[in-house]
Amino acid sequence: MTQPTRRELANALRVLAMDAVQQANSGHPGMPMGMADIAEAVWRHALRHDPADPSWADRDRFVLSNGHGSMLLYGLLHLSGYDLPLAELKAFRQLHSKTPGHPEYRYTPGVETTTGPLGQGIANAVGFALAEKLLAAEFNRPGHSVVDHRTWVFLGDGCLMEGVSHEACALAGTWGLNKLVAFWDDNGISIDGHVEGWFSDDTPARFESYGWHVIRGVDGHDPAALDAAIAQARAQTAQPVLVCCRTTIGFGSPNKAGTHDSHGAPLGAAEIAATRAALGWTHGAFEIPAEVQQAWDARATGAAAKADWQARFERYAAEHPALAAELQRRLAGELPAGWAAAAAADLQAVADKGETIASRKASQNAIARVAAHLPELLGGSADLTGSNLTNWPGCTSVTPERLKAGQGGNYLHYGVREFGMTAIINGMALHGGFRPFGGTFLMFSEYARNALRMSALMKLNTIQVYTHDSIGLGEDGPTHQPVEQTATLRLLPNMDTWRPCDTVETLVAWQTAIESRETPTNLVLSRQNLPHQARSAQQLADIRRGGYVLAEAAGGAAAAQAVIIATGSEVALAVAAQQALAAEGVAVRVVSMPSTFRFEQQDKAWRDSVLPRALPRVAVEAGATAGWRGVVGLDGEVVGLDRFGESAPAGALFKLFDITAEAVVAAVKRTLAA
Amino acid sequence: MTQPTRRELANALRVLAMDAVQQANSGHPGMPMGMADIAEAVWRHALRHDPADPSWADRDRFVLSNGHGSMLLYGLLHLSGYDLPLAELKAFRQLHSKTPGHPEYRYTPGVETTTGPLGQGIANAVGFALAEKLLAAEFNRPGHSVVDHRTWVFLGDGCLMEGVSHEACALAGTWGLNKLVAFWDDNGISIDGHVEGWFSDDTPARFESYGWHVIRGVDGHDPAALDAAIAQARAQTAQPVLVCCRTTIGFGSPNKAGTHDSHGAPLGAAEIAATRAALGWTHGAFEIPAEVQQAWDARATGAAAKADWQARFERYAAEHPALAAELQRRLAGELPAGWAAAAAADLQAVADKGETIASRKASQNAIARVAAHLPELLGGSADLTGSNLTNWPGCTSVTPERLKAGQGGNYLHYGVREFGMTAIINGMALHGGFRPFGGTFLMFSEYARNALRMSALMKLNTIQVYTHDSIGLGEDGPTHQPVEQTATLRLLPNMDTWRPCDTVETLVAWQTAIESRETPTNLVLSRQNLPHQARSAQQLADIRRGGYVLAEAAGGAAAAQAVIIATGSEVALAVAAQQALAAEGVAVRVVSMPSTFRFEQQDKAWRDSVLPRALPRVAVEAGATAGWRGVVGLDGEVVGLDRFGESAPAGALFKLFDITAEAVVAAVKRTLAA
Repeated sequence: MTQPTRRELANALRVLAMDAVQQANSGHPGMPMGMADIAEAVWRHALRHDPADPSWADRDRFVLSNGHGSMLLYGLLHLSGYDLPLAELKAFRQLHSKTPGHPEYRYTPGVETTTGPLGQGIANAVGFALAEKLLAAEFNRPGHSVVDHRTWVFLGDGCLMEGVSHEACALAGTWGLNKLVAFWDDNGISIDGHVEGWFSDDTPARFESYGWHVIRGVDGHDPAALDAAIAQARAQTAQPVLVCCRTTIGFGSPNKAGTHDSHGAPLGAAEIAATRAALGWTHGAFEIPAEVQQAWDARATGAAAKADWQARFERYAAEHPALAAELQRRLAGELPAGWAAAAAADLQAVADKGETIASRKASQNAIARVAAHLPELLGGSADLTGSNLTNWPGCTSVTPERLKAGQGGNYLHYGVREFGMTAIINGMALHGGFRPFGGTFLMFSEYARNALRMSALMKLNTIQVYTHDSIGLGEDGPTHQPVEQTATLRLLPNMDTWRPCDTVETLVAWQTAIESRETPTNLVLSRQNLPHQARSAQQLADIRRGGYVLAEAAGGAAAAQAVIIATGSEVALAVAAQQALAAEGVAVRVVSMPSTFRFEQQDKAWRDSVLPRALPRVAVEAGATAGWRGVVGLDGEVVGLDRFGESAPAGALFKLFDITAEAVVAAVKRTLAA
Repeated sequence: MTQPTRRELANALRVLAMDAVQQANSGHPGMPMGMADIAEAVWRHALRHDPADPSWADRDRFVLSNGHGSMLLYGLLHLSGYDLPLAELKAFRQLHSKTPGHPEYRYTPGVETTTGPLGQGIANAVGFALAEKLLAAEFNRPGHSVVDHRTWVFLGDGCLMEGVSHEACALAGTWGLNKLVAFWDDNGISIDGHVEGWFSDDTPARFESYGWHVIRGVDGHDPAALDAAIAQARAQTAQPVLVCCRTTIGFGSPNKAGTHDSHGAPLGAAEIAATRAALGWTHGAFEIPAEVQQAWDARATGAAAKADWQARFERYAAEHPALAAELQRRLAGELPAGWAAAAAADLQAVADKGETIASRKASQNAIARVAAHLPELLGGSADLTGSNLTNWPGCTSVTPERLKAGQGGNYLHYGVREFGMTAIINGMALHGGFRPFGGTFLMFSEYARNALRMSALMKLNTIQVYTHDSIGLGEDGPTHQPVEQTATLRLLPNMDTWRPCDTVETLVAWQTAIESRETPTNLVLSRQNLPHQARSAQQLADIRRGGYVLAEAAGGAAAAQAVIIATGSEVALAVAAQQALAAEGVAVRVVSMPSTFRFEQQDKAWRDSVLPRALPRVAVEAGATAGWRGVVGLDGEVVGLDRFGESAPAGALFKLFDITAEAVVAAVKRTLAA
């Protein structure tokens, strides 16, 4: 071939996917082969990107929500000219390659988000598109559209079946995210077989019910039809777009196309040969003819597009230098100059004030302080604003009307959509320009659990405000009373979970969350009031270590006979127990440990100084005890709760479940007697 | 009033809700006041139930999916004549009352499922309606409709925003569950205020896209309109029904109706007085006039309905005695006669066979054995049948076609809907007649996390098959490789999580799951082959204890210098380490601990005999270590994984993360040297 046809260009993606999966003896060839023509249309005719600079701020974003088709994306990145050589494709799914089984953010240039857990990619994409709209509203100026890009998404039946797609896509419709364009791979096949038996939604009608513009019945193997759909999508000014593409899974495979046999396993050498023949592809494994490579190469057009934007940005910077500098700071994720001093002053002020309030209220006060320094703070709640206390004086709610008018805002009403909220927040964090946080009851962190995991896996610095953190919430009862939730959050790798005991620790939690660059943070907060704890300047500084001596034993460290470790609302119980024991001549130390994650990161000397190996330990937390048993050891005691709560006023519950100062005193005495 | 009007009857519900919330100084009056007229229409004119027998098998089911409106249900139960005296309503939300903050299954007669976590009630209801259809298909005979009842649901905007409503309602449409009727409380208000800014779905169109019959624009305060809608709903033969009811939240409250101020807080004494006046309700707090009480009393009609069914059931039993007995056994949740002997024989056969296969495959074999004894076994998977190996020879897939033809089946294709699947399974378990189980990858237990919690909270005996349980799944990478999931499942109160090491433990896990009556079970299973372990008859019997000595130290118990504790795929590593250490003259015991839940239930003597206090301990599991640190103590060691996985072949990963026999050997040596 001299001038390759578009089908031939798509076939290059097909054979790369077949070959890589075969070489790895593992992977999913069916989706890449089915969506190759759509990929050719989008990547060669629509996507604005610069392979030489995958972090160009105003690039279009591409999200492969059906992430098991990762080889499609790797093929696209390789052929387009990203730094992903053929050797990496040959090492598909091998240790330390840039081509893991599913697209992993930070592993591969051009991968915008980690996908694989179905439905979350499209939800991330909603976050990308919302961030673009909000950033454009804030920074663009008449004659200067420096933020102006689209988000393109591929998704499959699995994404559409998942509930999170409902949550995120409904919001996308409400928000009118017209620069979001999703291509549905309507191949009629999922792992269990033909989908009719379990997926009979009228998907176009469903998306129209959300307010999307739906383009029906596009032949996903017809470039002209795809071009027309893309043109129609680009013309939308008020609605996100779903392009419904009829495709054949495993397109080109004579014996496996159209069946789930092509979904998740190598085609096998014989079928690959037959597919090559059927496609008229005469080249060897991983062999891409120069004309094909050249036709795919997007480096020149990408460089030109970026240069054009660069020139426009420079004109913008000339006219609006402060705005341009601020935009660059925010896109770089840098804290504003003066943050450290301001944070220190805030902390001192809060310590001096010494309020006794609920930590959810302390959090709201902390948010107000942070927001005063950080215009990029972007709050929100899953319909619990007045309970989570996630809003602040002067924050501006993002509404459909404001968005339609080209206005932004810094507070989001996510509705009752915890999973969608969290995945959208992940998308906004990936996009850049904002520090998004969300809020719900701690219990309903469970609805969003896997999106939290994705934030930790992708090393995002998102923040979640989780209030009503124990049986202390009282009458709403066991469905709403967290027991094991804080413990399960602590088990997440690379996740910092804080359970502060007063206004001071709450502010430190917020400040460390804001300063974090590669670790997300959960703030676990009380509904009920928590007394202020007095601290020295050194103690104030030590809070950041996650665990520190809050109240030394009477007579000093040397006199301590035991250590009580507590978090959040139970720190006050620990201090009361300490006083009761002191009255009986038993000297114990109280350690506050708002963040086990931070404490475990300290050096051994610090950890040993806080928790001397020789001293018996008692931990107290109104929640699951298993995690604390590892801290106190076989000889220690844990005062906690390993059963479900009950509906009653909070005071009655702490008594019922024996989470009291008296119980802590008794536990200390038992450890001393052992 | 002499003959109360329907509005007056509804007002009785309104004032009871207002009064109880006021007395508790906590709760949600707005929804009960808004849905009272709908409740009157459904409960007095449609619901077939017998207040004297809340467990009557063929009763209609009622689900309050917007469970925060619990006082509506308590009012209905009280007025209808259930064993819920006024004193209980006066103790709303107090400790040990039968009127907890949200409806709690097992706490209150007539409460069919615990609700509060939004969206799950409607999903449970889909399970109720499916169970009815499947049971009817299996047990009804020409002229004998002994299973023939409806499921009525109330739901709010919050339920509709939650993703799980998408998953469950799409399936209800696919399955054509025509006896499911849901009433949407379209009041335009959620906690953050008027919903337009975050909930703009065209809900009727959305549900039509799922294949529901939608009745639009019903005035939720007009009994005639509600009656007409109910009649239309009853006439449906092929589609579930959504009745869209426009309502006013807090109906009757002069100053708070129609605002979120009436949602989640007492109205206050003054507003309650004003509401009484506005409603023309002249009676005191908690005071129900005799005529109203009498008009609500459903005991006579309920007794008649039940007697009619009883007579029909007796005719059925006369004609089909075996079927009738089997139906009664299944509804009672009793295992078939001979189960114990059959289970013992199965176990011996599997032990004798001694296969080395993946535990997911061992699970499939176990399912086949269980299914041979238990026709009520009702399997399924969230679109991973071929991966979870949840089907078995001779199982029959439930399809829309079969359902339409009045046929049942015993295997469900849930599509990619983990949360919906799990909540539907909860509903089927609550309905009775089946032992439902589901399947997905262990990772995606997270999507269903809160439905798992609900199964444990409600003390259901549901079962989940979770395969691909560690980095052992290999190339799919960190998004699919469980690290902390088994540990987080173990933190759930009343949840039995098994991670068996071979075919024998896998069968025991299945058998204990089947025998469980009030505890749900998770089966955590490998993708990769696991070697058979030899056991004595005593060891075979001891597996049920959750932890037991699998391989005693060379030289016997007295010679043991340390204990290695392992689960699942790591038991083989422990045994290999034991052998390597023995070769060096170090005698260690290997404990297999497939269920920490069961082990912790054993008496201290057993636990101490398995894990003697004096012996150093090393635990090994390819997952989060925190839980095991509590088992091994401060002097012990854990070989595990506290970071995210990678994409690579499994063998490479175990090496990379140092989860090997060598690592176990080294850990044992460290504990001995300490």
